[in-house]
Amino acid sequence: MFVPGLIERKRDGGALAAGEWRELLTAYQAGAVPDYQISALLMACFLRGLTREETAGLLDGMMASGSRLEFGGLGRPVVDKHSTGGVGDKVSLILAPLVAACGVAVPMMSGRGLGHTGGTLDKLESIPGFRTDLSLEQTRAQVERIGCAMIGQTPEIAPVDKKLYALRDVTATVECVPLIAASIMSKKLAEGLNGLVLDVKQGSGAFITDAERSLTLAKTMIELGQDRGCPTVALLTAMDRPLGRACGNALEAEEAIMGLRGEGPEDLREVTLAEAVEMLVLAGEKDRAEARRRLDDALASGKAAEAFQRVIEAQGGNPAVVDDPALLPQAEAVEVYYATATGTIARVEPRLIGRAVVEMGGGRRTVEDAVDPTVGFVITARPGQQVHQSEPLASIFAKDAEGIELGRKALDQAIEIGDADGRRTPPLPLVQARVTARGVEELTGR
Amino acid sequence: MFVPGLIERKRDGGALAAGEWRELLTAYQAGAVPDYQISALLMACFLRGLTREETAGLLDGMMASGSRLEFGGLGRPVVDKHSTGGVGDKVSLILAPLVAACGVAVPMMSGRGLGHTGGTLDKLESIPGFRTDLSLEQTRAQVERIGCAMIGQTPEIAPVDKKLYALRDVTATVECVPLIAASIMSKKLAEGLNGLVLDVKQGSGAFITDAERSLTLAKTMIELGQDRGCPTVALLTAMDRPLGRACGNALEAEEAIMGLRGEGPEDLREVTLAEAVEMLVLAGEKDRAEARRRLDDALASGKAAEAFQRVIEAQGGNPAVVDDPALLPQAEAVEVYYATATGTIARVEPRLIGRAVVEMGGGRRTVEDAVDPTVGFVITARPGQQVHQSEPLASIFAKDAEGIELGRKALDQAIEIGDADGRRTPPLPLVQARVTARGVEELTGR
Repeated sequence: MFVPGLIERKRDGGALAAGEWRELLTAYQAGAVPDYQISALLMACFLRGLTREETAGLLDGMMASGSRLEFGGLGRPVVDKHSTGGVGDKVSLILAPLVAACGVAVPMMSGRGLGHTGGTLDKLESIPGFRTDLSLEQTRAQVERIGCAMIGQTPEIAPVDKKLYALRDVTATVECVPLIAASIMSKKLAEGLNGLVLDVKQGSGAFITDAERSLTLAKTMIELGQDRGCPTVALLTAMDRPLGRACGNALEAEEAIMGLRGEGPEDLREVTLAEAVEMLVLAGEKDRAEARRRLDDALASGKAAEAFQRVIEAQGGNPAVVDDPALLPQAEAVEVYYATATGTIARVEPRLIGRAVVEMGGGRRTVEDAVDPTVGFVITARPGQQVHQSEPLASIFAKDAEGIELGRKALDQAIEIGDADGRRTPPLPLVQARVTARGVEELTGR
Repeated sequence: MFVPGLIERKRDGGALAAGEWRELLTAYQAGAVPDYQISALLMACFLRGLTREETAGLLDGMMASGSRLEFGGLGRPVVDKHSTGGVGDKVSLILAPLVAACGVAVPMMSGRGLGHTGGTLDKLESIPGFRTDLSLEQTRAQVERIGCAMIGQTPEIAPVDKKLYALRDVTATVECVPLIAASIMSKKLAEGLNGLVLDVKQGSGAFITDAERSLTLAKTMIELGQDRGCPTVALLTAMDRPLGRACGNALEAEEAIMGLRGEGPEDLREVTLAEAVEMLVLAGEKDRAEARRRLDDALASGKAAEAFQRVIEAQGGNPAVVDDPALLPQAEAVEVYYATATGTIARVEPRLIGRAVVEMGGGRRTVEDAVDPTVGFVITARPGQQVHQSEPLASIFAKDAEGIELGRKALDQAIEIGDADGRRTPPLPLVQARVTARGVEELTGR
């Protein structure tokens, strides 16, 4: 294998064969190909694109670098979801136990927050004692025993993806659809799934803000899943405002617990149930209305909350938080934020909210940063809402007065109040479209 | 300086400011920026291109990484030439002493052979004892004393260019006009020149085979030179066949010596004199015909040959080779190559000849390879020439019978004999055009 020759071909718009991707990634993982050749190749991929076959070859090479979960005689279908990440997106914390309570195995592998969006792992770890660093074997055993596990990327799964991602992060080659798609799918497909639901965020708070590119990402991941025998469905959901009210790790864990008890904000409930229905359908439920009834029942009966308690207990956390969320870590300083004017909420900009959480200590600027689980916001203001000056719009949770000040300034920027007809852009529909291998089904009217 | 931000800007088609190039290259030279970030940036440069200002910024950053020659009170103009490299191109060996014999200082810095083209340093080092590793201070002193030095790139000149070139070589980012132009000019402009002549090779044996791109390269280098106060002129010369007859290090040194004595092949003489006239004009000679007379005189009187002897002596070599080229190392095996058919020579393909010299041991596959100075070809066959079967067309010089066999097979491929009207492509004019800051002057009719 002559690596400069492969780089040259990609540079000139040609394609690498599946066997070449595999050999290259194997050699890279073994340290036999230096970072500087791979980063040049990644930049060529970024600027030249990858064919469908190449993306598949890249994915297979990534998967071949590690192990995969194997469930033998589980007696239940295995389904998971992946979200491209948003602000206030605590859906996974509700979804995994909820769907598990309906008899589906959910071996959910998630990431940490980086950039302006939070990460499921950080939210889970705000629960005292909760551990996410299970091995593949521990994960398999836990899923067999209680039907659900919520873990981080183990070193055994697609290790070369981890190495590639770290390199992309420092060489401006992250935001490339086929590279993103192969990276996500290399981890998800290693979970041995029978089905996968993708939540592809739309709008200013999403990682990919361009609607067309995010649809391409959805389609690319669906192709990769389908081609490997894992039926895959994507929902395009709104991220032009935060999802739910809570933004910040422990605050989001608390809101998720409320959601599992059938309470909590309506938008969060709607997105969660939309994804949960898709998961049950992928698990074999033929009737969507029946799927919805089963989910409503799991929430109302307390079975979903109990399923979360079992996961917390199995992973070393304190399951009592589900009955008493006050056991979650609490912020030192809390302050109410009031409307600065009378009018209509024009916008609640998720990116500014997400960045403020990071600045207040609730996220990471570098991978090594420790996260303060207590800080963040609970924002009740919604786009389109009529408000009066000095009406409470949010609460700020911080470590100290300086953090409160940071939070207040962020909300001043993020929450825009216009006059009555001042809403410039209508908010995106909450669940905009359903994308499958057969095409895009608009759900705007729903 | 946030390097991923710079890479991202270049990736998206933006430009880096001169100060950013300089800071980046300084940090890279100091080891503070890793290879993998620079290689991603180089690939983005390759695919997105560089503006004129950026190319200048890159060049200045390269030059700032090292020292430059400073001639104080030399009393003579300082002029040099650079060739983009070809097969059989031994012009530099004649040109430097010839022009020096006409009263111009020539501090010639050259490279080694890599790929299918030979390098001036390798040709010089075939002269017993000849050393090319002079320091900047030794070079300056020698030019002041005898008017000429012929050296390799010293570690003091543009060291970051050396580091960049090594990286480009293994990341498929070599063949990029602005990167090539900045690399060449960073070394030449560090010689403290009053003028520079570029020999930009055209045709299948050139490094850049595309005529339009090689013209762009010429123009880019001219711009860089002019903008830095170094009047620069380029000649576009033919490399669709080898230049002269000899290909191979000692064989070319011998042909160069013949050239310095006013003998040798006509095409070699014509290209050399064309470049020499440009050098004298840049050195202040107003009358081109007078320049030509001075050069003819230097050749006829023996002054040019004597100047070469002085250079050889100053650099540790045996100056007697100029009077007796048989003192150059001689090949173990020699064989005459005969025409395989009667007809017209359609083509003598330089790239195949150059590659054969490398395969026979006369060039490098990697930088560490030792070079056998004795091997190569003397090819008398010229495109357009009528030949009869079994007429001698060339001599093969090799280490052993295996080398002879390699050489014979290469000539079978490289020398194409067609029927009388079988010449498919007319040969390129030897000196096709003269390019200056004012434009391109076609010399085809000359």
